[in-house]
Amino acid sequence: MPQPEPTVDFPRLQQDLEALAAIGRHADHGIHRPAFSPAFMDAQRWLQQRIEEAGLSLELDGALNVIGRLAGPPGRPAVVTGSHIDSVPGGGTLDGALGVVAGLEALRRIRELGVSLAHPLEVVAFTDEEGRFGGMFGSQAMAGHLTPETIVNARDLRGITLVDSMQALGFDAMHALRAARSPRTVQSFVELHIEQGPVLDRAGLHVGVVEGIVGLFKWTVRLRGMANHAGTTPMNMRHDAFQGLAELAGELDRILEEHGGDASVATIGRVELRPGAANVVPSQVEFSLEARDIDPDVLTELGLGFRRAMSAIARRRGLMFEFDVLSEIDPVACDPKVLAAIEQSADSLGVKSQRLPSGAAHDAQSMAYLAPVGMIFVPSKDGRSHSPAEWTSWESIEIGANCLLRTLLRLATDSASASTSATESAST
Amino acid sequence: MPQPEPTVDFPRLQQDLEALAAIGRHADHGIHRPAFSPAFMDAQRWLQQRIEEAGLSLELDGALNVIGRLAGPPGRPAVVTGSHIDSVPGGGTLDGALGVVAGLEALRRIRELGVSLAHPLEVVAFTDEEGRFGGMFGSQAMAGHLTPETIVNARDLRGITLVDSMQALGFDAMHALRAARSPRTVQSFVELHIEQGPVLDRAGLHVGVVEGIVGLFKWTVRLRGMANHAGTTPMNMRHDAFQGLAELAGELDRILEEHGGDASVATIGRVELRPGAANVVPSQVEFSLEARDIDPDVLTELGLGFRRAMSAIARRRGLMFEFDVLSEIDPVACDPKVLAAIEQSADSLGVKSQRLPSGAAHDAQSMAYLAPVGMIFVPSKDGRSHSPAEWTSWESIEIGANCLLRTLLRLATDSASASTSATESAST
Repeated sequence: MPQPEPTVDFPRLQQDLEALAAIGRHADHGIHRPAFSPAFMDAQRWLQQRIEEAGLSLELDGALNVIGRLAGPPGRPAVVTGSHIDSVPGGGTLDGALGVVAGLEALRRIRELGVSLAHPLEVVAFTDEEGRFGGMFGSQAMAGHLTPETIVNARDLRGITLVDSMQALGFDAMHALRAARSPRTVQSFVELHIEQGPVLDRAGLHVGVVEGIVGLFKWTVRLRGMANHAGTTPMNMRHDAFQGLAELAGELDRILEEHGGDASVATIGRVELRPGAANVVPSQVEFSLEARDIDPDVLTELGLGFRRAMSAIARRRGLMFEFDVLSEIDPVACDPKVLAAIEQSADSLGVKSQRLPSGAAHDAQSMAYLAPVGMIFVPSKDGRSHSPAEWTSWESIEIGANCLLRTLLRLATDSASASTSATESAST
Repeated sequence: MPQPEPTVDFPRLQQDLEALAAIGRHADHGIHRPAFSPAFMDAQRWLQQRIEEAGLSLELDGALNVIGRLAGPPGRPAVVTGSHIDSVPGGGTLDGALGVVAGLEALRRIRELGVSLAHPLEVVAFTDEEGRFGGMFGSQAMAGHLTPETIVNARDLRGITLVDSMQALGFDAMHALRAARSPRTVQSFVELHIEQGPVLDRAGLHVGVVEGIVGLFKWTVRLRGMANHAGTTPMNMRHDAFQGLAELAGELDRILEEHGGDASVATIGRVELRPGAANVVPSQVEFSLEARDIDPDVLTELGLGFRRAMSAIARRRGLMFEFDVLSEIDPVACDPKVLAAIEQSADSLGVKSQRLPSGAAHDAQSMAYLAPVGMIFVPSKDGRSHSPAEWTSWESIEIGANCLLRTLLRLATDSASASTSATESAST
């Protein structure tokens, strides 16, 4: 009969989550820990102390990523877990924090159990995942994606530079370039995170197994018609730019059904009309069109589908259409071995899990350039996030943390697991 | 064999139109004669001089309406024509000016011909038809619709009061209350105006016979859903406020076809999304919905149709909906006798005419409270107006002016024509 698999010290995990949640909490119960803010630095210090108390070795890299390490056989690539402890202004207590604190607890527990490891284990708190300075600074630095230029040009919404805000804290932003790691040092990366969407909550499940992080394209589209008097211009003589957009919006579902996958989404989130007066037929509409899917081919198909629809609408209505690509981000596929380790761990806990894509960006996306990655989701009540209303039941948190612990054990004790698939993963 | 009907002195009319067009013309060829501006006052003085030179009696009423009068039998109500000589900033040369100058030419010609009149004839240049101070100040004053309160509260977009701008010119705005006329003094009102829409131009006609001036309702509508992450929220779990608007916009034509008349129009001209970010499912959309028709019952039906559609969309999509009525203006029906006089005059000129509604507001709308009204439209090239691109061929202008002349003659020489239908007309 096999040994029962270990579990985390749940009261200790709870205590840590609550202690971290008290740092940067405002009267509205929202968490305010933007990167490099005093509350963020307090949280960094708190975490460093926890790591040292846990008997893990502590490192603060050039991007201010906090790393706790449990040594394994020398020269072996590490199984890495982690997430972030910065928050949006007025965020919830779990977005990022859960993955860091549960990762810490997992390493602490594994150390206590004296498990014989085939790989070292690391827990990382990545800096500025929420993108105060535009990107995922910490994990991008670790993935080696920063350049001196991107560092110098990074500014927050108030115009404060990354260089200045790190200098004010006694750090040199250029040292972030030193945080880059070789793929040879990372065996795999696993991140526990709240879903930030409604799927698991609606399905009544505790665990989601992320099969990939969706890619996206974001366009700015302009339709141009002709401004006309809303009283004197008969309906059939109009070139109403807004009606062109409305027709496209009405075809969104059809385009997703015809060209997309099960989990494809598309959103029109920003709309600006000109001249924008009640009594003038709109001459121009500029809008954002964003589509996401986990499969790069599906994204390509969706792009073609939207372009075809817009061409047809523009032709039919006598409008001009043009679009600018604002961003294109490739999807990241999670690694089958990491997925299997997560699913076996969920099975071992006796809980049902569901595969689903991550529609939001995560540090795992950057880490996929270094190593095979996987993510564990726990449900977000009503899908709420980036808000004090963000909530996950303690039951789901415990199950998620145990799932992470067992996944890390599976990966760190499997001496045969490949570290060579990093390049493959990065090219998807 | 009947006498051929008279025609205007076309070269003289052309000269007057060109002289007036030179007043307030800027380098871009746009006409800048907002009410009470120096250019407007120059145009007023120019017109007063023309009226006196034409041997008509001149009156400037308390609203600064310029009135030229050709006497008829004492005590008889006047057949009135006219329009306005103020312009939007950067308007065209004919919007308003054509009706005033052609009216002047008609009275001048009738005086020269020594026609025996059953009614006096008047030509009026109404002040501020373009609504620098919010409404059609001059014709509203004549119709007796002003109150001391509306006069004191009237301000332009820069915050300048009507009282101050008239005082700076030596006039007391309160005297506008004296401009009110009794319906007993007006037998009928006829206005020649450019169409400001594309219907006659597309149909290749010189003359349109306005069957009425459309009424309208203008609503501000809000649809509220829920803001959600555009990446993590599946399509079938969204409450996307913008998609609700897009669905309504897609039903615009159906609603007009089911509940409207041939010439009903509806416009969504202003749209504002919240939060208005590319990566957030919109939680709220606020938009303008404006519908116009010539039949008050049709307008009521359209209002019901839109409300029903919005309720259904809101229910289906899990949205809340509410709307504020910004304005409701009753349609004005033109008088059958005046219409007949215009059509007979067009026939006498050997030109085809077409009945059509006026989708724009005109001074005739105010005058309908005093007397039966009619309007003659001449084509606007491509429907352009309120722009230096506004243009009507000289051929159409000549035909329109002759049509006005002959219509005025018909009305002013018909001693049997009723002046009692004013009350009827006002109640439509």
